[in-house]
This record gives sequence, C-alpha cells and structure tokens, in this order.
Amino acid sequence: MLDQLDLDVKLKKSEAHEQISELRKQLRATQQLIREARIPVVVLLEGWEAAGKGGTIAELVYPLDPRGFRVRSTRRPNEEDQARPFPWRFWKDLPSRGDFIFFDRSWYRPLLEDRVEEDPGENRVKAMAAEIREHERQLTDDGYVVLKMWLHISKAEQKKRIVHMEEDRYERWRLADKERGFVKSYKKYLHAAEEMLELSNSGNAPWHLIEANNASFRRVKAMRVLLETLQRALEAKPAPRKKSHAGEKNGEAKELRERARHIEISGPPTILDTVDLSKELERKEYETRLDPLQSRLRDLALEIHRRNIPVILAFEGWDAAGKGGAIKRLTQELDPRGYEVIPVAAPDAIEKSKHYLWRFWRSLPPQGQMGIFDRSWYGRVLVERVEGFATEPEWRRAYDEINRFERQLADWGAVVLKFWLHLSPEEQLRRFEERERVEYKMYKITPEDWRNRLKWNEYRMAVGDMLEKTMTTYAPWTIVEAENKLWARIKTLETVVQAVEKRLDE
Amino acid sequence: MLDQLDLDVKLKKSEAHEQISELRKQLRATQQLIREARIPVVVLLEGWEAAGKGGTIAELVYPLDPRGFRVRSTRRPNEEDQARPFPWRFWKDLPSRGDFIFFDRSWYRPLLEDRVEEDPGENRVKAMAAEIREHERQLTDDGYVVLKMWLHISKAEQKKRIVHMEEDRYERWRLADKERGFVKSYKKYLHAAEEMLELSNSGNAPWHLIEANNASFRRVKAMRVLLETLQRALEAKPAPRKKSHAGEKNGEAKELRERARHIEISGPPTILDTVDLSKELERKEYETRLDPLQSRLRDLALEIHRRNIPVILAFEGWDAAGKGGAIKRLTQELDPRGYEVIPVAAPDAIEKSKHYLWRFWRSLPPQGQMGIFDRSWYGRVLVERVEGFATEPEWRRAYDEINRFERQLADWGAVVLKFWLHLSPEEQLRRFEERERVEYKMYKITPEDWRNRLKWNEYRMAVGDMLEKTMTTYAPWTIVEAENKLWARIKTLETVVQAVEKRLDE
Repeated sequence: MLDQLDLDVKLKKSEAHEQISELRKQLRATQQLIREARIPVVVLLEGWEAAGKGGTIAELVYPLDPRGFRVRSTRRPNEEDQARPFPWRFWKDLPSRGDFIFFDRSWYRPLLEDRVEEDPGENRVKAMAAEIREHERQLTDDGYVVLKMWLHISKAEQKKRIVHMEEDRYERWRLADKERGFVKSYKKYLHAAEEMLELSNSGNAPWHLIEANNASFRRVKAMRVLLETLQRALEAKPAPRKKSHAGEKNGEAKELRERARHIEISGPPTILDTVDLSKELERKEYETRLDPLQSRLRDLALEIHRRNIPVILAFEGWDAAGKGGAIKRLTQELDPRGYEVIPVAAPDAIEKSKHYLWRFWRSLPPQGQMGIFDRSWYGRVLVERVEGFATEPEWRRAYDEINRFERQLADWGAVVLKFWLHLSPEEQLRRFEERERVEYKMYKITPEDWRNRLKWNEYRMAVGDMLEKTMTTYAPWTIVEAENKLWARIKTLETVVQAVEKRLDE
Repeated sequence: MLDQLDLDVKLKKSEAHEQISELRKQLRATQQLIREARIPVVVLLEGWEAAGKGGTIAELVYPLDPRGFRVRSTRRPNEEDQARPFPWRFWKDLPSRGDFIFFDRSWYRPLLEDRVEEDPGENRVKAMAAEIREHERQLTDDGYVVLKMWLHISKAEQKKRIVHMEEDRYERWRLADKERGFVKSYKKYLHAAEEMLELSNSGNAPWHLIEANNASFRRVKAMRVLLETLQRALEAKPAPRKKSHAGEKNGEAKELRERARHIEISGPPTILDTVDLSKELERKEYETRLDPLQSRLRDLALEIHRRNIPVILAFEGWDAAGKGGAIKRLTQELDPRGYEVIPVAAPDAIEKSKHYLWRFWRSLPPQGQMGIFDRSWYGRVLVERVEGFATEPEWRRAYDEINRFERQLADWGAVVLKFWLHLSPEEQLRRFEERERVEYKMYKITPEDWRNRLKWNEYRMAVGDMLEKTMTTYAPWTIVEAENKLWARIKTLETVVQAVEKRLDE
C-alpha cells in the first residue's frame, strides 16, 4: 500500500516558495477564525525516522501566533504514565478550544516502535488499535479536530539522511537517543506502518500520507492538508459573526473612548521618562538585520538544548506595545520543540486559591528549553496593584518575593531576561484606533483596553516602582523603546542573542 | 542534640485512647475553621525508616474530612522533576487555601538520604538548606502553615521494627523498595539528621521533634502539635464570622424555602420508585458491623496496592443524602497514602474550555490506588442537563461517552463502582432544616440547595435516565437506600468490599 506512493514527486524551490508564502497567509488568517470558532485542533506527525517530522511542524507553526499552539515530542512513557491508562498522558496535554497542539510522534508508538521491537502479537496490536480509535473518537465527538499525517520516505532516502545527520554536529546528539536501527529494519517498520494505517484509518480521524522524499513537496503538502482540514472544520462550525465592540452599548463605549483619548502624564518622575522613544528602524534595515539574528538564535537554541540550559523570558509592556509581534519574531525560526510561549491571563478560581507564583512554577520549561511568558508574575505589582486585586502589603511584599523567585531560577542555571515594551500614550492611541478600523485587528481591542488606558498614570507609577525594585544582575530588565515596532523587535532579539551568547561563553 | 530526647516516654493505651478521642473532636472542628479562614496547611513528616511516619499521617487525617486533604509520598525525583528547579515538584502539589497536604518525606531528601549516600560535601549541603529555607519562607510569607515533624526512634527500636516488618507479609513489599541499610548506618543518619534540623529550623517553619519509640505517645504528641499549630494560625488569621445564609436577603430566602418545602413527585415512573427507603440499621448493629468491614477494606487496600489494581469509585446522590459521611466511613481506616478523595465542583474556566472528561482523566489515581470521586463525570447528565449548561445533543451523547470512558477504565484493569445515594424529599427537608438549626452544620446548607430541591422532579427524570443508560457489567451502579444514614454507610462499605474481593479472586 505505501509502496504505491510516488516518492519521486518534486516541487521546484521557487514554486514552493511562492506557494508557501501564500499558504502562510491563509493559515495565519485561518488560525484566527479557528480561535473565534473555538475549535480545538490536535495534529499528529508520524513517520520514518529522519522523514522530517520536526521540520514539518516548524513549517506548520511558522505562520501561527505562538500563544495559540504547543508542541510536544512524545517519548517513552515514564513511571507516572505507566501507572495510568494508556491515553492518560495525552489527555493531560489536551488543548483548549481554539488552540492547537502538535505531536511529534504520538499515541501510535505501540503500533510502530513497540510492534517492531517487542512484537506483542496480533491480538494485542488489534486491541491497542481499538483503544486508539476509541481515544480519537472521544475527541472528535466533542468537536476536536484530529489531523494525522504520515511522512513517508524511501529506504535509500532514509539512509542518506541518517548518514548526513551523523555528520552534523547539531543533529548528531539528537539522533543519539533514537533508534538508529530504523534503517536496518526498514521492511519490518514498513509492515508495521501499513498495518497501523489500516487499523486506525477512520472517517473522523483519517490519515494523510505525505510524500516526503522531496522537502519542498512535503512542506507544501503538509501545509495544504492542515489548511484544508481547518477549512472543513470551519464549514461545519463557523466562527460567530464578529461584533464590533464599539457597536455594543454604543453610547457608553463611545463616552469611554472619548474620555480615554487624551492622557496627561502626571506624578513624580520615573525611570520611564528617560526612555528615548525616537529610536526607530527603516523597514529595509530591519529586514537586513532580522534574518541573521533569527538564524543566530536558532543555532543558540540548539546549543542551549545540548547544554541543558533553561532560558526564561518575561514580556511586559503597555497594551498594544507589540509584545505579541516581538515574541513572534523571536520564535519564528526556532525549532518549535525547543520553546513554549505561555500566555498569562487573569488567574482562574483554582489559581486564585493558591500562592500567586504557583501557576508560574507549574509552567516552568525543562532545562534546555526556552519558556517565553507573555505577561508574567509581574502582574502582581502591575494590574493587581492598580486594580486593587492584591492588597498593599501583598504587592509591596511581592518585589522581594519576585526577586527571590528569580534568584531561584538563576541559581538553577537559567538565563532570566525581562522586557518592558514602552511607548507613548499618543502612539498607543494611534494603534488602538487602527485596531478599531482594521477588520482583522478588531479582535485585539476591547473596552478593557480603553479602561486600562485611563489608568495610565497609575500604571506609570507601578511600572517605575517595578523596574526600580526588581532590576537585578541575575534577572535584568531591558526597557525596549517600542514606539517603533521594527526597532523594538530587533532590540529584543539582539538582547536575547547577546545574553545567551554571554552565558554560553562562561 | 537528638540524643537528649527522652525516648523512654510512654503513654498508657487507655490514657492515649481518651486523649486521642478528645483530640480528634478538636481537630475535626478546627479543620472547619481552617477552611473558613482559608488557611492552606502543609505538613511534613520526616524521620527514621520505620519510625511510624505513615501511621502518624493516618492518625492525623483520621478526623479530617477527606475532601480537604491529600497525602503524598515523596519518592526520588523522576526525569521531569530533574529537568526543573528543585522545588518544582512540591509547588505542583501545593494545596488550595483551606486545604491540607501531608508529605510522607518531603524536600529534605537532599539533606538526609542523599547526604548519607552520595555525600555531596558540606558546601552543597549548606546551599541546599538555603534553598529549602527559601522555599518554606515563600510559602509562609503567603500565609501557608508549614508544619515539620521529625519522628525519632532509637537504634534498638528501629532494628526491632525492621525485623518485624520483614516478617509481615503486608509490610515486606513496602520495605522492599526502601533503604534497608538504614539500620546499619544509624550513626551516619543521626549526624545528617542533626545537621538538617539545625540548618532548617526557622521561626516561620520550625521543626517539632516527636519521641516515637512509644506509639501511643507519638500519636498523641503529633496530634497535639498539629492542633496547636492550627490554633495559632487561627489566632493570627481568624475565620470570618459565620453568616447565617437565612439571614441575608431575608425575605427572598424565606420565600424560596417556603416554596421548596413541599415537593410533589411527578412525571413518569423511574427505577427510583422501586427503591425501598424503609431499610435501616440500629446504631448498635451498625457499630458491630462497621469495624470488621473497615478492617477488611484496609487489608484489601493493601492487597490491591500490592497487585497494582486501580479502584475507581464515583459517588452521586441527592443533596444531603450523606455522600460525605459514607466516604468518610469508607476511608477512615485506610492507609491515607493509598487513596485520594477528589471533590468535584462546578468546572472552572480552563476546565470548561476543554473536553468535559478532561478533568476526570487528569485526576485518575495510579494503579494500586483508590480514587474516590465525590460527584463525578455524571454531572454532565445531571446538573448540566437540568440547568441547561450542556445542550441536549451534548448530554444525550454523554451516556455513550461515559460508558466508553468507563469501559476504558475497566479495560485498564480498574474496579469501577458507582453509587447513587437515594432518599425521599421529606427526609431531605428534615436534614436541610437540621443543618440550618445546628451551628456547626450551617456551612453545609446554602440557598443553592433549596433551589436544587425545587427541581426535584427534573433531577428525578435525569437520574432515572442516567441509571438506565449507564448500568453496565463493567461499571455497575449501586442504588444505596440513604433514608437511614447508618444503613447507607454499611451498604456502601459492603458493596466495595465485595467487589474488590471478587476481583482479587479472579
């Protein structure tokens, strides 16, 4: 069956380039619709060792907002997993409605690796396949999209790639803990793979076969499959019609916006007053500098992975200062298995009932990975202070608590960097109004933003105190001049690159 | 230092019995105040192998509502833990405000076992101790009570106990994966323990030394230490004054209660109509039967632990039907490390944004343990159906989904039992009114309960459908006649005992 795939299909790089650029645009727009329609998406990548699963995931997530997806590499079950029913560990990682998860290998291990290595017998295989179908059916019954891709390459191609990986110093360590024996038993794996595909092809969660000998063809086909799958899901469950926030309770909202338009800065001077907001970059220079910085960071990320160094980045800043865009440029070229963006919203009931640092502790990345917090524990001394969610003794105590928390991270060996994205009230206003005008940006602006803007001076004091009291050598703040987005993105990237380089040199 | 403890102190069993009975009463009442004051409590038990840590925890939790505490045995850190900062895994288990956690061994391993076995050197030990103090300080700064007990026994006593454990078939396997070498290196451990006590004794989280050669003395002292610690915490942060719910918005509440007093059963017949609510037990007979059943279940629990069999119990029933009391009688004599009670409330925002089974999957106990759900996934076809939180297609689909979920549990090897505690509307009314009258029961009744009561007939239909559609051989329902509490408790216990016995015989 798999031998009927035409592995000679090719796509010229130039053609692929054009198609990819178009597919990215569509995927970016579609992600937004998926979020609005609250459809949760589970994407599995299975296939031969060295078939390009990691690269495919990187391609698929490239256009996506990193706050809306996670990537998981599935390793052998550990002790905790083994003490639970088989699907337990995959349930733990289930995405919320509107979010994506990408699995680099998944719940098919028992039908592939285990099948070949331990040969549990046909009955056991059939029973496992039934369990897997059951698991997928539970998800799809509840509206989850389950998209499964099998990346197929020929024996000769696989051999070529593994030899090549062994020669590459970044790839070699990655290969080390995997089954190099794959090539030797190509035939056995082929049999297992065909059996697996047959046993687990279902209407609700069908397999998509991707011819992967040619990288360009693989990339384009995988993107297309994802896009089409999402589009079909949206046909079945379209996003609700967008409401313009300005439209609701029109008078009230209008009045709020009017009041918040003009902000007069007041209060004692803070460190923010000295920030030079005239810093800017031309688009051309931006583009010249972006590429090498992103490539450099990709290499550094592999190096920190190899050396088991954790990196923790915390992003704070005014609404509309461009945190999301800066984070996107930071992660765009990274192997998505090596970082995670953790969006931080208001705490839920359970989070509120514990120490406020609890949810950040829980979200810490493992060593060798980058954890990027889009808003962070600094909420305690910003929004919680300004809105009165924390009492004065609580937020006053928090500076010290936060310093000690970050000290713990630094002692653990982490590179800890904190960014404050700064802009003027005038530039914020311009961006708010642009968001209200431009349809695809509309979801980004709510009455909440206008209300926060009214409290500019209170936040200004809170930010000043925060910077002053939590500026440490082991977890330094970088104030990013964000009046010009291009400048802000390059400065963020440069800061991270330099800090990681410095650590690696130590 | 530790040699100055008088290990010859003894308490006569009869004296201890009396004191324990009084301390239990006080602890039970104090737990309620701690919950109302929203004080989170972390209790660590450290001490010699065979000093009685497990038994002490069992004694301490005996009087407590099992919905308000968890027990964790701390093993060696696994791969996931090792990739994170040292305190990470303890943060994961942090209790919510008002709840307890009991650690059987804790974050002191590096200063005890590791100190002796790997001897990391004095500097490393001091650094670890500083990390530990920092961790404890973070918790206590935020209002956590951190109570640390060191259970001390003599070398001769330890030797006697380990020999005895090796002769006991239930204890032997437990000893197997632990350090039998303890006795041999008593002196080295003694040194490490003294060093640890000195390095980590702090005002905010002091050590309490418990002389543990004599079991009665140990039990009483540990209970007293816990009680006094809780009382001091309550002095510093008293529970808010109780409000009688009836007092608020008096007219409205009164009107609601009046309307809900009399319930006329209506609608087509259901399986509930055939339940014989006249079943009852005299207190004397109850007491005669309770003890042997509880002992039997304790033995069975050890056996399921030994044989790695998971047990899943789901409790549903009318408000005030006595679920809590039945669960308490079920768990009272069990080793608290072998079960967990999972109280199920309305889903929070994150839970709502995922598959409704997600939170139950996450809470599954490991093999060899008992997971007791106080309310369960049946909420989908009960409250969510009646209140309209789930759409009709959703709850209709749920019967099948639930059956398949339970089938997965059964296939995994679990004993799955479900209980519906049934009573008449008249008996419910009597209990509601009693709760309103009796001060320490007042927290148990809210206007919500009266509102639910008004929907008796809708629930009646929902329960009927539920029992009919989810009554399976692999996960049977037991309808418990709960008009008489004593009868209900014995029937529940008997059902569990018989089902586990049956499984063990297979």
